[in-house]
Amino acid sequence: MSQRITYTNQVGAALDRALASTDCFGLFVIADTNTAQLVLPRIDSEWLRQATPIVIPAGDEHKGLDTLTSVWQALSDGGATRHSVVVNVGGGMVTDLGGMAAATFKRGINFINIPTTLLAAVDAAVGGKTGINFNGLKNEIGAFAPACEVIISTCFLDTLPRQELRSGYAEMVKHAMLSGSLAFNDVLSHEPTADEPDRLLQLLEASVAVKQRIVAQDPTEQGLRRALNLGHTVGHALESLTLQQGRTVPHGYAVAWGLVTEAVLSHMLLQFPSSDLHRLGTYVREHYGTPGITCDDYPALLELMRHDKKSRQGEINCTLLRLLGDPVLDNTIVPDDMTTALDIMRDYVD
Amino acid sequence: MSQRITYTNQVGAALDRALASTDCFGLFVIADTNTAQLVLPRIDSEWLRQATPIVIPAGDEHKGLDTLTSVWQALSDGGATRHSVVVNVGGGMVTDLGGMAAATFKRGINFINIPTTLLAAVDAAVGGKTGINFNGLKNEIGAFAPACEVIISTCFLDTLPRQELRSGYAEMVKHAMLSGSLAFNDVLSHEPTADEPDRLLQLLEASVAVKQRIVAQDPTEQGLRRALNLGHTVGHALESLTLQQGRTVPHGYAVAWGLVTEAVLSHMLLQFPSSDLHRLGTYVREHYGTPGITCDDYPALLELMRHDKKSRQGEINCTLLRLLGDPVLDNTIVPDDMTTALDIMRDYVD
Repeated sequence: MSQRITYTNQVGAALDRALASTDCFGLFVIADTNTAQLVLPRIDSEWLRQATPIVIPAGDEHKGLDTLTSVWQALSDGGATRHSVVVNVGGGMVTDLGGMAAATFKRGINFINIPTTLLAAVDAAVGGKTGINFNGLKNEIGAFAPACEVIISTCFLDTLPRQELRSGYAEMVKHAMLSGSLAFNDVLSHEPTADEPDRLLQLLEASVAVKQRIVAQDPTEQGLRRALNLGHTVGHALESLTLQQGRTVPHGYAVAWGLVTEAVLSHMLLQFPSSDLHRLGTYVREHYGTPGITCDDYPALLELMRHDKKSRQGEINCTLLRLLGDPVLDNTIVPDDMTTALDIMRDYVD
Repeated sequence: MSQRITYTNQVGAALDRALASTDCFGLFVIADTNTAQLVLPRIDSEWLRQATPIVIPAGDEHKGLDTLTSVWQALSDGGATRHSVVVNVGGGMVTDLGGMAAATFKRGINFINIPTTLLAAVDAAVGGKTGINFNGLKNEIGAFAPACEVIISTCFLDTLPRQELRSGYAEMVKHAMLSGSLAFNDVLSHEPTADEPDRLLQLLEASVAVKQRIVAQDPTEQGLRRALNLGHTVGHALESLTLQQGRTVPHGYAVAWGLVTEAVLSHMLLQFPSSDLHRLGTYVREHYGTPGITCDDYPALLELMRHDKKSRQGEINCTLLRLLGDPVLDNTIVPDDMTTALDIMRDYVD
């Protein structure tokens, strides 16, 4: 997997440089209705002005086969060849779906990702996972295919609500926990919504590097890459539960609460230091508040965890930490321990 | 690209061995309406009896998004996981579409190909190209994804018309020309429709090995793999022309005439030996007859060649040979030379 990542707020110039070094006949740019209006006009690129635009509807509910088919159709009708290049400009929905379209058009053409949300910059746009939702399931259809180039910036984040910034920042907290105490200190000393784009770009560079190191060792998620699931067994369950309860919490908020819960488990089962757990809990309470659950919700949460994709036979499976930077894969968690951990997480954030 | 190929007429035993060595939870078998009836009952496999069957309509006109979607749906509804395995039993349409379904289900699950036509055994099932037709174009949507195992046999070829056997055999002639004079002698000393399954299996093993060597050096068709296009610039044009004229010729027949034409060009431009050209022309006349074209058809043929996928800017591009086993990629052919070569091809086979 070769994937160049450029960190810059001169996005147009970076894009022109990337395309000049590519064997590109025919350029297509995929954006959603939001980024087509708010971001595309702000990218000052010679190449982009001559590209064929493909605008798709915004929102995760459109991350499906109908939209994918419309992109394939636009590429085919637009005369795209094996030497054409696709530029995806948007959040994770655009980079996932546009990446999948490029990965499967004529058995794969080059694509470049320009993530416009913090979550996409730190997670979706990097690492080669593409996909669409199908049959009611997230990313049920997809491919492993890296963008040949990812251009990461913070200059478009002003188009986003502050809640979105906090949500993306939770994945940076996760990467810091997988990296070590230096990264953990750096990330926890920054406010998710601070208006410091250059500092945030620095932190992003360090954060994405953590993911890159892990993905490089395990591109198709056979082993180590599952370390990136830290916080997500509990996080996904909280996300699904609140969705069932008719109150949506952003993905990253659920991950933040999941990180606290799994750090508690790490302390209980692997002697993860209580001082680090305490700092994490305090930071999450301050910036993410509470999931607003009670112990009556525990049976439903545990049931959701048993159906997590990491679970093979109905057990609860978590990535945990011995220390900051020292993950342990495939821990089976008994229900009593999970219940205790959820209690302690709530003590921290409620 | 790791792809194990087993040559055997004990297909069921080979399949059971392959699956026993795989981390398989949940087995699905994809067949078309023909192979489900004629071939599946003849595969004596413990595993296959417990597999979930997915039967798709036969025929290239069904190699499209609707059928692919129905396979995705069946896998998803059938509870397939990342540890499930798909077995494709059929000709190139089944291995291409079933391979594409497996390559994109949950970002790729393992699949095994059991080709049941000679063409699929020697070509489609091996080498990692999967795909479907889209927007009226062949394999417009697809992925490079190798089957983890291909089980090649000759025991099901008795279910095919003799014309199908000859068609597949033309690709074996092509591989022999790319290999060298020993392989060329072996392949031309065998009758395509001879009832000698064991001898044919030997020849198949040598033939597929030629393709494997080339694909291993260039899995995603950046360079050397285009050697496998030998005969196909002219072949595809003849196939399309006869289709437009309302008389369908099998793919391999068009390739056989294409091989003769491109061997003539090889002789004209690269001193390919006339003795080898002569033996090829004689063999093709005997087993494949004539394309039944006249010089009135040449302008349409040349126009089709200019739109071949290998052409970048409207020129005619062919793979040629200096000698048997010594291909030269990316020869630009001027119209006069192509016209002369078509004349001489017709002198051989008419």
